Amino acid sequence: MRMFDIIRKKRDGVELSTEEIKFFVENFVAGEIPDYQVSALLMAIYFKGMNERETADLTFAIRDSGVKIDFSDINGIRVDKHSTGGVGDKTSLVVAPLVATFGVKVAKMSGRGLGHTGGTVDKLESIPGFKVSLSKDEFVRIVNDIGVAIVGQNAELAPADKLLYALRDVTATVDSLPLIVSSIMGKKLAADDDCIVLDVKTGSGAFAKTLDDSLALANAMVNIGKRAGKKMLALITDMDVPLGYAIGNSLEVIEAIETLKGNGPDDLTKVCLELASNMLLLAGKGKRTACRHACEKALQDGSAFETFVKMVKAQGGDTSVILDTDKFAKAKFSREIKAWTSGYISGIDTEGYGRASLLLGAGRNKKEDSIDYTAGIMLKKKTGDFVKEGDVVAIMYTSDEKRFEDAEKVFKISTLMMDTPPEKRPLIFARVE
Amino acid sequence: MRMFDIIRKKRDGVELSTEEIKFFVENFVAGEIPDYQVSALLMAIYFKGMNERETADLTFAIRDSGVKIDFSDINGIRVDKHSTGGVGDKTSLVVAPLVATFGVKVAKMSGRGLGHTGGTVDKLESIPGFKVSLSKDEFVRIVNDIGVAIVGQNAELAPADKLLYALRDVTATVDSLPLIVSSIMGKKLAADDDCIVLDVKTGSGAFAKTLDDSLALANAMVNIGKRAGKKMLALITDMDVPLGYAIGNSLEVIEAIETLKGNGPDDLTKVCLELASNMLLLAGKGKRTACRHACEKALQDGSAFETFVKMVKAQGGDTSVILDTDKFAKAKFSREIKAWTSGYISGIDTEGYGRASLLLGAGRNKKEDSIDYTAGIMLKKKTGDFVKEGDVVAIMYTSDEKRFEDAEKVFKISTLMMDTPPEKRPLIFARVE
Repeated sequence: MRMFDIIRKKRDGVELSTEEIKFFVENFVAGEIPDYQVSALLMAIYFKGMNERETADLTFAIRDSGVKIDFSDINGIRVDKHSTGGVGDKTSLVVAPLVATFGVKVAKMSGRGLGHTGGTVDKLESIPGFKVSLSKDEFVRIVNDIGVAIVGQNAELAPADKLLYALRDVTATVDSLPLIVSSIMGKKLAADDDCIVLDVKTGSGAFAKTLDDSLALANAMVNIGKRAGKKMLALITDMDVPLGYAIGNSLEVIEAIETLKGNGPDDLTKVCLELASNMLLLAGKGKRTACRHACEKALQDGSAFETFVKMVKAQGGDTSVILDTDKFAKAKFSREIKAWTSGYISGIDTEGYGRASLLLGAGRNKKEDSIDYTAGIMLKKKTGDFVKEGDVVAIMYTSDEKRFEDAEKVFKISTLMMDTPPEKRPLIFARVE
Repeated sequence: MRMFDIIRKKRDGVELSTEEIKFFVENFVAGEIPDYQVSALLMAIYFKGMNERETADLTFAIRDSGVKIDFSDINGIRVDKHSTGGVGDKTSLVVAPLVATFGVKVAKMSGRGLGHTGGTVDKLESIPGFKVSLSKDEFVRIVNDIGVAIVGQNAELAPADKLLYALRDVTATVDSLPLIVSSIMGKKLAADDDCIVLDVKTGSGAFAKTLDDSLALANAMVNIGKRAGKKMLALITDMDVPLGYAIGNSLEVIEAIETLKGNGPDDLTKVCLELASNMLLLAGKGKRTACRHACEKALQDGSAFETFVKMVKAQGGDTSVILDTDKFAKAKFSREIKAWTSGYISGIDTEGYGRASLLLGAGRNKKEDSIDYTAGIMLKKKTGDFVKEGDVVAIMYTSDEKRFEDAEKVFKISTLMMDTPPEKRPLIFARVE
C-alpha cells in the first residue's frame, strides 16, 4: 500500500477502503508518511468529501491512534455531553453536576479554549485551587463518590487528531465536514462513555453558521457514534447570540453557579435543562418530560448546586468563592460600553464578541498564551433588546487597561442596531437522534 | 502576505494575483514555505485550475527562480525546439543541425530521460567522447562557429521547477494543465532563445493521450511564450506509434544519422522536416514552403549531416562512429520477437514499448540509474503492417540477457493484432500559432 495511490484515489473521487484509511492514519502518527503527502490528501478530501463509511473509518482510526481509556471501574452508566463550541457557552459547568445528581456518572474530559471559543477547563481553573489534572484513580474515585469530575484531556488521547489538526490549520483544510466530524468524534469516542448528547451550535458565533451545516454535522456525528455502539443524540442550539450574559472565565463560572441555583438567565437555563434531560433520557432514567421536570426541580431545590460544590471540593477547589461569588478575584479595570445610538439590537456577530473577550485577555490566540481569568464581558443587552443612546450595553473587564480600545472597537462593529426589532430565532432548532 | 491565505483563495476558486504567485514561488525556493503548504496549494490548483494570466505568472516565477542565461554574445537569431516527450523521438538530433545549416543558431540545452521517454543528452552520450557539459564560453564559441551545440540542462536553471516537480511526483498533482505548462515553459523561457517551436506529442506514447488535451497544452504554451516576447509555434504530432523504428540510445543516434543523410524512415523524416521548416519560418528565413524545400535539399545533399559531424567533433565526440555507424558499440545480446499470430498490427501501446526498452536497460526508473547505451528495440513492423505468424516483429538488444523475459512480455501485451487493418492516423495533427 502506498500513500501516493491513496491520494490519487481520493483525488479521483474513488472511495477509500478501511485498510487504506487505517494505513494512512497509523503511518502518519508513526512518522512514516511525510506531512506534504498528508496535506495533499486533506485537500483532496476537502474537494471530494468522504462518505459515511469512510468518515467512520477515519474517526475510528483517530480514536485508536493513542491510549484507549477504560472506565469499567466506574459504577453505573457513563454519560457525556459535547458542544461544538460557542461564545459564553458554560453549559458543561451546569449540566455535568445536574445530571450527576440523578446517579448517572459524568467522567468528563474537556478541552481548553482557542480563538474565540472558551474551554471548560480554563473556566474551572478560575476557581482557586481547582485541579483539572487528576490521576486516573483519583478521577474514578471522585466520579464514583460524587457522580461527576471534570479534567483536562489526556495528552495521549487520539494523538492523530492533534497532528492532523495542526496540518489542517495551516493548509486551509479545516472547513471539511468529514474532517471536522472525525476530529470531534475521534477524540470523543476515545473516552469510555455509554451515552453522548451533542450540542451542535448554529449561528454567527458557531463553527457551523447555517442550520443546514449544523444539521449535516449533527447527523454525521450521531451516525458515527451509533456505529461505535454509543447511545447518541444531538441538539441544534442557537449561537447567533452569546448564551447567557457572561463571556470570560470567572464571569461564566459565576453565571453557571447562579444557573445551578435556579437564578440563571432564561436562555442558558433552557439549553441546560434540554441537554440534561436528554442525557438522562439516553441513560434510561425515564421519559423526557419526567426527566425535564426532575432537572427543573434539582435546580430549584439546590441539589444540583450541592453536587457542584462537592465536585469543586473533591477537585481541590476553594468552595468559599462558590458559596459567595463576591469572593472571586475581580478584574483591575472595567469600562462600560454605552449605546452610540438608539434602537433595537437587531443582530450580533457573536464570533466578534468572542474576539473582543479574547482581546481583553480572556482567551488564547496561540496554545502557549496565558489567560486572564478575570477578563471578559458582561452583556447588559442582547439581540432584540431596545436601547436608548447612552444606555450601558455591556461592561468590559481586564487586568490591562490598554486592551480596552481594540476590544471596544471589535465589540461595536459586531453589534448591529436597527429601528425595528429583529425576527425571533428559536433557542433549540432541532433534535437529531 | 501569508501562504495560508493563498491556499484558501485558490481552494475557493479565487484568482491569485501576480504578487501572490511570486511570493509563493520565491519563498518556497528560499525554504521559507514548508512543503506541506505547497502540496496543499498544488492539490487546490489541481482541482480549481489556473487561468492564462495565473499560469503565465507561475511560469515566469519559475523562470526567474534561478540563473538567467544571457546568450547575447551569440551572433544571429537563436531558435529552439522542445518536445513534450515520446518514444523513439530523436528529432532534436536531426532538426538542430539541420536548421543550423541555414545560419540560424541552436544553443540547445536538453534534459535526460526518465521513465518511458528518452533524453537527447543520453542519446548523445552514446557517442564515445561526446561532452554534454561545456563551459559557457565553449558553448557560445561552438554555436557561433558551427551554428549548433547541445548540452545538458544547467542545474541552476529554474530550480523552482525541480522542487515543485519533486512534490507533484509524490502527491498525485502531476496531471494538471497549468502545472505542466508552467513546468515546461518555466525551464524553456529561462534559456535565452528568440523563437521556439514546440512539438506536442499526442497518443498512447505521449504525456497527452488525446488530441483535445494536446491542443489545450499547445495553446497554453504558445500563449505564454508569446507573453514572454518569444516567437512561438506548436505542432501536434503523432505519438500513437514510435517515431521511426529505433528505440534506445545508440540505436536512435544511428537512425538520426541515416535521416540526416536523407535515408531515414518516412515518418521521422517528415516530422523533422515539418519542425525544421517551421523553425526557419519563425527565424525569418523565408516562406514555409521555401523553407521546407531548403530543408529537404539539406538532407539530400549532405550539408545537414556535415553540420552534425562538425558539432560532434567540436563537442569532443568520436566522429569515426558517425561516419561509419557499424563502429558503434554493439549490445552483447539480441533476441528476435516473432509474430505469435498472423494479422495486422492494429495498435501499439507506445508507452509500453518505451517501458520494454527501459526494462532492457535503455532508460532510467530513478534519476540515479545508469544507462546501457547499446540496449533498446529495433522495430521491424509498426501499426498498419501485416505480419505472418513467425515473422520478426522486432529485435531487442541488451547487455544483460536476464532482461529479455520481462521486456518481451511488456512488448507483446503492448502490441494489438487484428484481422483488419487499422484506420490511418495523421502524422501532423495541427499547427498552433
